[in-house]
This record gives sequence, C-alpha cells and structure tokens, in this order.
Amino acid sequence: MPGSSTTQVVLDLIGIAVGGAAGALTAVRSGMHYMGCLLLGLVTGIGGALTRDVLLGAVPPAALTDWRYLTAGLAAALLAQHLHPLLSRVERVVDLADAVWLGLFSVAGALKAVHLGAPPMASVLLGVITGIGGGVLRDVLVDRKPVVLTQEIYVLPALLGSLVVVTAPFLGWPSGAATIPGALLCTAVRVVAIRRGWRGPVVGRRDGASESSR
Amino acid sequence: MPGSSTTQVVLDLIGIAVGGAAGALTAVRSGMHYMGCLLLGLVTGIGGALTRDVLLGAVPPAALTDWRYLTAGLAAALLAQHLHPLLSRVERVVDLADAVWLGLFSVAGALKAVHLGAPPMASVLLGVITGIGGGVLRDVLVDRKPVVLTQEIYVLPALLGSLVVVTAPFLGWPSGAATIPGALLCTAVRVVAIRRGWRGPVVGRRDGASESSR
Amino acid sequence: MPGSSTTQVVLDLIGIAVGGAAGALTAVRSGMHYMGCLLLGLVTGIGGALTRDVLLGAVPPAALTDWRYLTAGLAAALLAQHLHPLLSRVERVVDLADAVWLGLFSVAGALKAVHLGAPPMASVLLGVITGIGGGVLRDVLVDRKPVVLTQEIYVLPALLGSLVVVTAPFLGWPSGAATIPGALLCTAVRVVAIRRGWRGPVVGRRDGASESSR
Repeated sequence: MPGSSTTQVVLDLIGIAVGGAAGALTAVRSGMHYMGCLLLGLVTGIGGALTRDVLLGAVPPAALTDWRYLTAGLAAALLAQHLHPLLSRVERVVDLADAVWLGLFSVAGALKAVHLGAPPMASVLLGVITGIGGGVLRDVLVDRKPVVLTQEIYVLPALLGSLVVVTAPFLGWPSGAATIPGALLCTAVRVVAIRRGWRGPVVGRRDGASESSR
Repeated sequence: MPGSSTTQVVLDLIGIAVGGAAGALTAVRSGMHYMGCLLLGLVTGIGGALTRDVLLGAVPPAALTDWRYLTAGLAAALLAQHLHPLLSRVERVVDLADAVWLGLFSVAGALKAVHLGAPPMASVLLGVITGIGGGVLRDVLVDRKPVVLTQEIYVLPALLGSLVVVTAPFLGWPSGAATIPGALLCTAVRVVAIRRGWRGPVVGRRDGASESSR
Repeated sequence: MPGSSTTQVVLDLIGIAVGGAAGALTAVRSGMHYMGCLLLGLVTGIGGALTRDVLLGAVPPAALTDWRYLTAGLAAALLAQHLHPLLSRVERVVDLADAVWLGLFSVAGALKAVHLGAPPMASVLLGVITGIGGGVLRDVLVDRKPVVLTQEIYVLPALLGSLVVVTAPFLGWPSGAATIPGALLCTAVRVVAIRRGWRGPVVGRRDGASESSR
C-alpha cells in the first residue's frame, strides 16, 4: 500500500518538525544549553514514534534509521532556538502548530499500529502514546509534571483521532482514508480546548495531606 | 505448559488492576485531571510488564495486545478515582493490596524471564523490574523521587520473591510451582516492613553540599 | 570479527563499572537507601547500553543477559557506596573516571550500531545516547534536570567520539580501529571542558514568564 506509506512519511516529517520546534522552545525556556536544546527538541519530535515502534517491535525505529526524520527534528530544533524571541511573540501560532502536531502524530501512530496488526484497543492506545509521548518525555526531562496529564486537554483529542482511524475499517472505510478526518477532529478539539481555556476535570479535591504516602 | 500460562495471566490481571488503582490514586492526589489519572493508572499497572517484555524482546507486549489487561488497568483506575475518598480512609487495605501487587508482579516477571530462557541473574533483575517498574514510572511522571528507591522497602521483597522462582529449578522444583511461595514471601516481607515502619538503611550521612555536582 | 567483539566487551565492562560507581555516588548524595543506591548504580551503568540495544532490536540486551555486566555494575555500585566519603575527597579522580566512561560508552555505542548495520546518522545518535543515556536516566530518577543537558558539556564530546567511529570506514579505516582515537578525543574534550569550567552556550535569556505554557 504505497499510498498510505507515503502519507505516513509526510505526516511523520511534519509532526517531527513541529515537535522538534516545540521541544527546543521548552528547552530554551528551561535554561538548557545549545546542545541540550537540540537533543531535547529531537527527543520531543521523535519520542512518541520511538516509543510506539519499540512497543510494536518495529525496531530499529524508522524515526532513527531514516536520515530525513532526524534532519527534520534537528533542523526544526535549531531554527526554533534562534527564532525563540520571535516565536514567543506569536504564541497562538505555536499553539496551533502544536495542535496540528498532536493530530498528525495520533493518527499516524494508530495507523501504523493497525498496519502492523495490533488489535483495536492497543492501536488506539498506541495512537495516544504516539501523540502525547514526545511531550511527556520532554516534560520528564525538564523535570516537571507532564502538562498533558495535569493541566491541558491532550489525551481526549488524541483518543478521538485514534478512534476514528481504528474504527474506520469496521465501517467499511480503509484506515488510511480516515487519517485526514481523524487528524482534523483531533486538532479541532484541541484548538477549541485552547480557545475556551478548558482544563481537564479533576475528581474530588486535592488531598495534599496524603501526598507523601505511596 | 498451559497451567503456568494460565497462572501467568491470572497473576498479571490481578496485579495490573491493583497497580492501576494505586496509580490512579497517586494521580488524583497529585492534582492530575480525569484522563491523566486514567492514563497514569494504566501506565502504573502495565508499566513493569511493558518494560520487562521490551527488554526480553517479547513485543508487542501482551499487556498491550491483550484487551483484558488494558480493560483491567483502565477499569481499576476509573473505579479508584471515584472511590478515592473511600480508599483514603482505608489506607491499610490499600497498603496490603499494594504488597500483594508487588509479590504477584515480581514472581510473574521472574517466571516469564525464566520461560523465555533468560539467564538466572537477568531473570531475578527482570522480576525486580517488573515488580517495582510501574511504581517507578508513576513517580517519575508525577515528578517526585521514586519512593521505592528513597524511603520504602520494595526492592528487597521483590528480590526475595524473584530469587525463589529463579532458584527453584536448581532445587528440583518447577519455577511455576514456586510462584505462590515466592509471591507470599515477597508480600510477607513487604507487609512486615510496613507494620514495623522499616526504612531502607542509608550509607553515611547526606552530603547536601555536593548535591549539584555530577 | 572476534577482535572487535572482545574490544566491545572490555570497553563495556569498564564503562559499566565506572557508570555504576557514579550512579551510586549520586544516589547516596540524593538520600536513597542501600538497595536504591545499588539499583540506581546499575541503571546508570547499563542504562545507556540498554536503551541502545532496545532501539537497535538487539534484545534481550547483552547488558542484561551477560552476568559479567550485571556483576560489574553491582560490584562498582556496592564499593562506591562504602567508599563514598573517600571518593568525595578525590572529586577530580571521579571526574576523570566519568570522562573516561563517556568516551568508552560513546564509541562502544556507535561501534555496535555500525556493526548491526544502522545508517551513519543513526549510529552517531546511538553513540551519543549510549554515552549520556545512563546519566540522563540517573538524573530523571533522582528527580532533577539532567546535568548533561543543562550545565555540563557532555553531548559535544560524545558526538565527536561517535563521529570518529562512524566516519572512519569512509576514510578507509575499520570502525574497530577508530575506537581508541575516538574515545581519547571524547575524553580529552570532556576533561578540557571540566578544567576550563566550560558551560554550554545558552541561546538568548531565560524567559521565565512563559515557563508554564506548553
């Protein structure tokens, strides 16, 4: 299926570049040095795809062996470092790119899992992991709680986008054809969440007193 | 060996459910939102087994492809979130479940490593990794030092449980038959450690002044 | 090629021992208990090689199945714990050992990637990952920003050492023969960086106000 394979590569390249830029920006803000920013950008860009491929046994991961992926991630991290003051002024553009990145990676992750024969539930989970994995790795490396788990709504849109790709074959659509609607749905939900300032719902109150117990 | 395989599945399912609940409770206390709690619960529940399977090359890991495992982890995380105020009142029950979880996962991890032909020393280490891996991942994701490494005694019981499973064949017992005594020993040591308030011994004093050097 | 394979094993063993000692020292300073220090030492020692092997699909990783590696890491972590007050007085020796460790692991990582057929760019990256991976894991587990990304110059020497190994075949040298010059170059750059007190360059100023945005 060469068509969907090309789709996969293009989705991955754009996603890795946006992720690389987002990771480098966080690294700059976190006070990392030049090489640290490059590396954190690369890890953010390819981290989700790496995790997915390791879990699927698709090793060595394409994100590592394909020089185009590495180049996209590193070039974006390099550019983002130098354009940092500019990018901070256009925060909305960065947020939008970030939402597009989430949509692209979630559907690409779910699509690859489906292609490699993973069962539906695992494919949806792998879509979510691919979508948010880079951001989680980035936050762990700058030593803060992952924002995707604590404040911002990322898991829900990644879940919806992955669900579209995984359920499409049951409705008679090929998974490949469902990537664009899936990515659009994911990105749209994310953009609405940003615009409306939605925060994920929290069950009960914080129970700080018990924080230290296991 | 269908018997030990069924044993493995049952041990894994119970362990994943208890881990999922423990992870979700920590996530709620850490102020994570609804989806974050679900995901952190799932990661805590299946994290140890995922790490073991990736290291053994048993990919895609059963914890990911088997819908029963995912369902057990997610359902337990869901329930624990909603029962959070109740569970906080029965801290002792949670501690006990946690000790049972440690025992189940340690022996299940060592058993799978033995079955896949890993050498004894690696199998013991994989038992420990399976037992404490989910808790370590959870603590990294809520941005704190893993309690299993800093305060509480988890490594020692996991080590003892794994040792029982791995050394059993040398004494003429099949590894499968050693799972129940191994898990019981691990859980018993953990429970005694909780009851007596044991803390792991620390070598020398803390040397805070040098903390920032590599 | 038994020669390069023996080289690989010896490089790995020394590297794992030095890494194990460095990890255990950090763990002691971070207030971890006895078992925590042993485990953190082991993870620091074999973490880089484990990550490389998992990414290359060389599983189960030799660092896990070969009892010599586990023994080297654990023995070094054990010794370092007990010699902690002594080692703190000879900080320069520890720094030097650390620089040797970086050199050994970077070239060993790149060499294995080349041997397993990874493309040049991926091999260089895997050399860097092997060199700094253990230190990054260690810092994540003691809950601080990885010093290799924020303060100290580690990535550049690891990159240079890996480049020597990976580019050697293009200049008519076997990769194996390039390991010693590669490791020496890496260690030399690291030692100079320590002596001169070099810090990695930072792009622009810290932008603390935007820290909390994604």
